[in-house]
Amino acid sequence: MIPRIAKEKIALEELKRRILAEGRNLGGGILKIDSILNHQMDPVLMAEMGREFARRFEHSGATRILTAEVSGIGPALATGIAMKLPVVYARKRKPITMKEPVYVETAPSPTKGGDVLLMVSPEFLHADDRVLIIDDFLASGKTLEALVHIVKQAGAEVVGIGTVVEKAFESGREILSDHCPHIESLVIVKAMVNGEIILED
Amino acid sequence: MIPRIAKEKIALEELKRRILAEGRNLGGGILKIDSILNHQMDPVLMAEMGREFARRFEHSGATRILTAEVSGIGPALATGIAMKLPVVYARKRKPITMKEPVYVETAPSPTKGGDVLLMVSPEFLHADDRVLIIDDFLASGKTLEALVHIVKQAGAEVVGIGTVVEKAFESGREILSDHCPHIESLVIVKAMVNGEIILED
Repeated sequence: MIPRIAKEKIALEELKRRILAEGRNLGGGILKIDSILNHQMDPVLMAEMGREFARRFEHSGATRILTAEVSGIGPALATGIAMKLPVVYARKRKPITMKEPVYVETAPSPTKGGDVLLMVSPEFLHADDRVLIIDDFLASGKTLEALVHIVKQAGAEVVGIGTVVEKAFESGREILSDHCPHIESLVIVKAMVNGEIILED
Repeated sequence: MIPRIAKEKIALEELKRRILAEGRNLGGGILKIDSILNHQMDPVLMAEMGREFARRFEHSGATRILTAEVSGIGPALATGIAMKLPVVYARKRKPITMKEPVYVETAPSPTKGGDVLLMVSPEFLHADDRVLIIDDFLASGKTLEALVHIVKQAGAEVVGIGTVVEKAFESGREILSDHCPHIESLVIVKAMVNGEIILED
């Protein structure tokens, strides 16, 4: 008899397979997975990721999803579609349509250098919101921590943090667990050594 | 007997209703619809837009979807999910994961001022691609034209251009129709005068 393998399990295995096949270890802890998550998005896999986050945060009581532009938008939107929740992305440059005062935090940019501002309009983050934060990577945790601070500025509560890829060899999870008890990553990278990418089973 | 109204028609009417209810005419032809399309995305409506683009470009033979970061990503990903096609977004800042030569074009930014670069890696745009370009706005057409030029640099073909909101009082469609015979907009803004937003029926 063939053992029953859940559909979501297959999707996660496919994500892992693709990261190992197409991901590139650029050194210095930088993992390039441009063909799936950034620059190019695989929408079938992205929709699966969204459903998986929806399953893991089913009981979070989330009222809104928050992410940061640019590369968080894909996974956050896919999760929003699955959970039927509005998705807000923190902006890094202030467009002229953003006229009123905004919540602002600073975060370092690991792939572009320097610091970036993250800005969210109070129109889209309220004190009674229960916020699920979704992003592509959990590495140093600095961007996610800046998003947590924005949620706190608004007087709202972070009920979950979900990321597609976690680099377990950086200390992001430790920093974030002070702010949020429920952190989920779909794929955990144990190590990146000698050009290799080693995933947790 | 109640006349049968197609589901996609209802979704478009809801999109129009929301733009009229929540959109703001900021003057100078700038339309703010941050609560639906940018900054905050309504994922249910966004998924409907994706299905509508999929319906309109069903016979385009598209092999890839191209958009520009940031605000094109939502509608493009929703279309990619509906059409099961990879979605590439042109980057405006070069991340350190983008090491190889890239296709580059310049476009003016109507909401941020100045010019922006649009960059696409040749990895994700091939000479045999049939490209469907999706973006949030069709106004001056300059961003979309820059994307068309990137597709041509790659030796590929533009088989369609789809935008969520078209400002008919700007000349974008005229500029683009030289490059692509099939242009679709979900909502057409006829005029923006005296703080009002007037849509085509």
